[in-house]
Amino acid sequence: MNKLLIVGTVAFDAIETPFGKTDKILGGAATYIGISASFFKVQSAIVSVVGDDFPQEYLDLLTDRNIDISGIEVVKGGKTFFWSGLYHNDLNSRDTLVTELNVLADFQPKVPQDYKNAEIVMLGNLHPLVQSSVLDQMETKPKLVVLDTMNFWMDCALPELMDIIKRVDVITINDEEARQLSGEYSLVKAAAKIHTMGPKYVVIKKGEHGALLFHGEEIFFAPALPLEEVFDPTGAGDTFAGGFAGFIAQSENVSFDNMKNAVIQGSNLASFSVEKFGTERMIDLDKKEVVSRLQQFKSLTQFDIEL
Amino acid sequence: MNKLLIVGTVAFDAIETPFGKTDKILGGAATYIGISASFFKVQSAIVSVVGDDFPQEYLDLLTDRNIDISGIEVVKGGKTFFWSGLYHNDLNSRDTLVTELNVLADFQPKVPQDYKNAEIVMLGNLHPLVQSSVLDQMETKPKLVVLDTMNFWMDCALPELMDIIKRVDVITINDEEARQLSGEYSLVKAAAKIHTMGPKYVVIKKGEHGALLFHGEEIFFAPALPLEEVFDPTGAGDTFAGGFAGFIAQSENVSFDNMKNAVIQGSNLASFSVEKFGTERMIDLDKKEVVSRLQQFKSLTQFDIEL
Repeated sequence: MNKLLIVGTVAFDAIETPFGKTDKILGGAATYIGISASFFKVQSAIVSVVGDDFPQEYLDLLTDRNIDISGIEVVKGGKTFFWSGLYHNDLNSRDTLVTELNVLADFQPKVPQDYKNAEIVMLGNLHPLVQSSVLDQMETKPKLVVLDTMNFWMDCALPELMDIIKRVDVITINDEEARQLSGEYSLVKAAAKIHTMGPKYVVIKKGEHGALLFHGEEIFFAPALPLEEVFDPTGAGDTFAGGFAGFIAQSENVSFDNMKNAVIQGSNLASFSVEKFGTERMIDLDKKEVVSRLQQFKSLTQFDIEL
Repeated sequence: MNKLLIVGTVAFDAIETPFGKTDKILGGAATYIGISASFFKVQSAIVSVVGDDFPQEYLDLLTDRNIDISGIEVVKGGKTFFWSGLYHNDLNSRDTLVTELNVLADFQPKVPQDYKNAEIVMLGNLHPLVQSSVLDQMETKPKLVVLDTMNFWMDCALPELMDIIKRVDVITINDEEARQLSGEYSLVKAAAKIHTMGPKYVVIKKGEHGALLFHGEEIFFAPALPLEEVFDPTGAGDTFAGGFAGFIAQSENVSFDNMKNAVIQGSNLASFSVEKFGTERMIDLDKKEVVSRLQQFKSLTQFDIEL
């Protein structure tokens, strides 16, 4: 198996959906990515920062899943990053109620020595300079660098974002962000433009409408599993990215054909993530359920037309 | 091959999209359905009505594609149904500018004797009483009846609509209509509720987001082919329905597994329809292009995860 290095937030979230609301619970991009990747045979580490208000049980939860947390800095007297959001009725849009950067404001990532030769690097959503700093610390060139980002950085740190985009192999962003980044409405045209910014592979996440993987002229599409009810979309994109990167790391295969499988694996895991608040569903999920739902993905999409 | 009986409008459309506008051109649900179905080996007939303002060349165009038009009544001194619509910038919504029912107002459909034993019946979007009248005229029970309808009839003729829905095997409607008809936001729940109204198979069309086929607990999904540009969505749903019904008629196989193929064939043909105004692209389309794009659908969706 390949080593997987993950950078991203480890945080508190407070979430309100039409179905209920939570107090401060475990959240953060790296948390979701790490938990999702842990469904594969990988050796993974998270680089992040928390305050000393962050419960040991949350850190234990990551360690229990064989995630190396030596790269998670605990700042004495510091407060953990906190995000709070309110989802609208259709769950397709949300308002951010609170963003307290806290210890994230001065975060200087430190890649553990053991992971400076990681083959797969997953740059979760964070300031592009932090993402760049992680790449700068690598001692061997990774086989695959995957970048997740969001519109916030396009608005506030576009030059820095463009610098890191240049350096990655895969970018995962949602449809609106792809349109904003490229200035193109058509996602086919948007992906073509984003290719020219650097990434050979462009993944456009469309939420309940699935995900597209572009590689030059080639396109692959994975639907979202039709669910009776989406309960909480928080972390679905990160869970997708974690499944994608985790599967690639396990299979040690960065071909386009294998990325198709990685997109399906990511979509599959994300379909569980949205069934309960926060990380709740992912934490009680077992591998049998994962395989059984993969079978549903096959039934959902595979057909046999003779050409 | 099976006989395919089609009922629906044969009409004039005037279309405006962000890319341009047309004068009165050939339109109508049965027109799109018939042209789309003609890409398969089928014996088909259209039941409809036009005025004597309807150009012979349009009728010839249907006859040239081996469509029996003996069931298209030409009303002397009558004017053909006319619809005009304006698409918004994202092409996902439109305003109806003009609807002149004209000869459609008093339409009494007459099924040609030769088609009273048709195995496949495609009830295109029309007043539910007209759709019922066609079924009443059948002398043998069809193997498969497919119904297309729209929100207009839910608003204006719900009891009559519910009567015809009870009598069909497959219903095809779009996502918003499925929600309106069922009162359920989740499409999985909506399909389950629509099953209880009669149809064993429910197809929910999501436009650029593809189509879902439900049969009890089973679900199949076909994406829309990602296109650089959608030029004119008019008739895409009818083209989908025509491809679906035409493929079923050709293959004489109404199993769920074969319906998956039919959904792909319908999506494939619809992906061409939207590339030019009205029926223009469908009329110059050749079968090689159809097969080549089916190959793209395979690449787009097929993967090979070992379970």
